[in-house]
Amino acid sequence: MVPLRIYRHLIPQLAAAARSPSAPKVAASASCAPRPISPLPALAMAAYGTGACADSKLLFRQLFEKESSTYTYLLADVGDPEKPAVLIDPVDRTVDRDLNLIKELGLKLIYAMNTHVHADHVTGTGLIKTKLPGAKSVISKASGAKADHSVEHGDKIYFGKLFLEVRATPGHTAGCVTYVTGDSPDQPSPRMAFTGDALIIRACGRTDFQGGSSDQLYQSVHSQQIFSLPKDTLLYPAHDYKGFTVTTVEEEVAYNARLSRDKETFKTIMENLNLSYPKMIDVAVPANMVCGFQDPPSKV
Amino acid sequence: MVPLRIYRHLIPQLAAAARSPSAPKVAASASCAPRPISPLPALAMAAYGTGACADSKLLFRQLFEKESSTYTYLLADVGDPEKPAVLIDPVDRTVDRDLNLIKELGLKLIYAMNTHVHADHVTGTGLIKTKLPGAKSVISKASGAKADHSVEHGDKIYFGKLFLEVRATPGHTAGCVTYVTGDSPDQPSPRMAFTGDALIIRACGRTDFQGGSSDQLYQSVHSQQIFSLPKDTLLYPAHDYKGFTVTTVEEEVAYNARLSRDKETFKTIMENLNLSYPKMIDVAVPANMVCGFQDPPSKV
Repeated sequence: MVPLRIYRHLIPQLAAAARSPSAPKVAASASCAPRPISPLPALAMAAYGTGACADSKLLFRQLFEKESSTYTYLLADVGDPEKPAVLIDPVDRTVDRDLNLIKELGLKLIYAMNTHVHADHVTGTGLIKTKLPGAKSVISKASGAKADHSVEHGDKIYFGKLFLEVRATPGHTAGCVTYVTGDSPDQPSPRMAFTGDALIIRACGRTDFQGGSSDQLYQSVHSQQIFSLPKDTLLYPAHDYKGFTVTTVEEEVAYNARLSRDKETFKTIMENLNLSYPKMIDVAVPANMVCGFQDPPSKV
Repeated sequence: MVPLRIYRHLIPQLAAAARSPSAPKVAASASCAPRPISPLPALAMAAYGTGACADSKLLFRQLFEKESSTYTYLLADVGDPEKPAVLIDPVDRTVDRDLNLIKELGLKLIYAMNTHVHADHVTGTGLIKTKLPGAKSVISKASGAKADHSVEHGDKIYFGKLFLEVRATPGHTAGCVTYVTGDSPDQPSPRMAFTGDALIIRACGRTDFQGGSSDQLYQSVHSQQIFSLPKDTLLYPAHDYKGFTVTTVEEEVAYNARLSRDKETFKTIMENLNLSYPKMIDVAVPANMVCGFQDPPSKV
C-alpha cells in the first residue's frame, strides 16, 4: 500500500487553459419557456453538505442519474471570483442538465473527473469537452484510460482555494481512486470523500472485472485511505440503489454489510455474490477508456 | 394571506409520550448478514446540509423513493441526549429502510410528518405508528386528514432544541404546508425549507385536484412564505424527477420555469399542463386522509 503523501502537485490552482463555459441553450416549450439565463451575479449560495462555517466557499450539489443509479457531484469555490468548479462522475445522459445548472449558478467548470472507468454507464466527460472545450478530463493514471490529466495517489486537484486529494483505492477496478477534500482550516469541515465504487452505502462495488480484487479492495478501504479518515467524514458514493444519499466513516465501519467484516469473511462474501454479467460493460468500458470520446456527436 | 406569526406552541419540546424506537429486524442473507445493530453510542456525525458551524446539532439525511420519486427527510437533534428525530414525508414502501437507519443512528423518532395529503404515494406514517407506537403523526389541520397532531400556520414543532416552523402554503392542495427551520443563532444556517409540492426544483405541483388553486399557490410562494425567506435558504422538495436534490430561494426566484413568471403567465401555464389523471390518487388520497391507517398490516 502506498502511504498517503502529497508528492505531486501537477494540477495548478486554476487551469490557465480553462475557458468560460458556453453552456447549451435551454430547450423548453413555449408555454413555460424560462427567462434567458443570466448567471446569478452575486451568488450568495452558502456551502451545503459540509458543515462549514460562514466563511466557507464551497458550493456543493449531488445529482442523480436514475437509469444507472449514478451520483454526479458538483463542487465549486464560490469565494473565488471565477467560481471554478469540478464535476465528479458525470454521466453522458445528464450532461445537458449538469451544464445548464453550472451556467445558471455562474460557475466555470474546469475539471470533469472520474473515480474510475465505469462499466455501467458512459461517462459524460467526452460530451462535456465537446460542449466546453476549456474543461479538462481527469482520471487516474492507474486506470490506463486516456484523459487530459492522469492523476496519481497524493495529487491535489485545486479549484480555486479548495482542493481534492487523490487517494488510490483499487479493488473494484485496478485504477479506482477516492477524491477527498483537504484537511486544513480553510477546507470543508467535516471532510468529504467521493468513493466511487470502492465503498457504496452499506456495500461496495463488485471485484470480478476490470482488474478487480477483493483482497485489494479490503486493503484500500481499511488502510489509511477511507476508514482511517475522521469518523465524521461524509462519504459520497458513485451509486446508490436504495435511496440513500450519504453516509459517514463511522456508520460504514459499524454497519457496512461487507466491509465491516474481517477480511476472510469479506472475500467469501465477494466470491459468492453471483452477479450477472454487467449489461453495459461492453459498451461503457471501451467508451470510458477514452473518457467518452469513442463516438462523439457529429453536431454539438 | 395569514401573516407569519408564531401564535401557537402546541407541540412540546419533547413529546413525553414518545417511546424508544423498537426498530424492525434486519433481513439479510446468511452470506452477508450484518452484525446485530447496536446504535452508535457517541455519534459524532456532524450536521450535514446546513452549513452549520461546529456547535450545530442537526443531523440531516435526504432519502429517495424511486417509484414515486419522493424525497423523505430525516432530521434529528444529536446534541440532545435522546437524539429526537422527525421524518418528513415518509413513504410506505421505504418505512423499513428509514426505521432501520434511525435505529442504526441511535435516534428516537418522535414525529412522522407530512407536508400534505399526497396523491402519488401512500404515506409511511400509518406503518411507522404500528412499528413505533411512540411516534406521532403530524399534518396540517387545513388538510382535513386525521393525525395525532393537526398543525396550523405559525406552529413550531420541536425536536430537542431544534424546531420547524409551519407555514401555510396552499395551492397544490388546500392543506399544503412548508416546514422551515428556525431563524435564530442556535438553529441551522442557512435555513432549510421543506416545501412539499408547493415548490419543486424549477417547477411546482399541479393545482387541478384536491382543492388546488394556481392563484393561491402563486400567492403562497410569492408572499412571505417561501420567496421572502433569505436567498440562501435551502429548499428541499417532496419530489424531483430529474435528479436534483436541493435548490435555493435565490435560484428559484431566478429560474423556476413557472413561479418566476408573473401571476397571469403562471396561471396560464398551470391551466395548460394537460397532465393525465393521477394514477395513484384513488388509492393514495383515501389512505393518506387517515395517515396511512386505512389498511394496517395484520402482523407487525
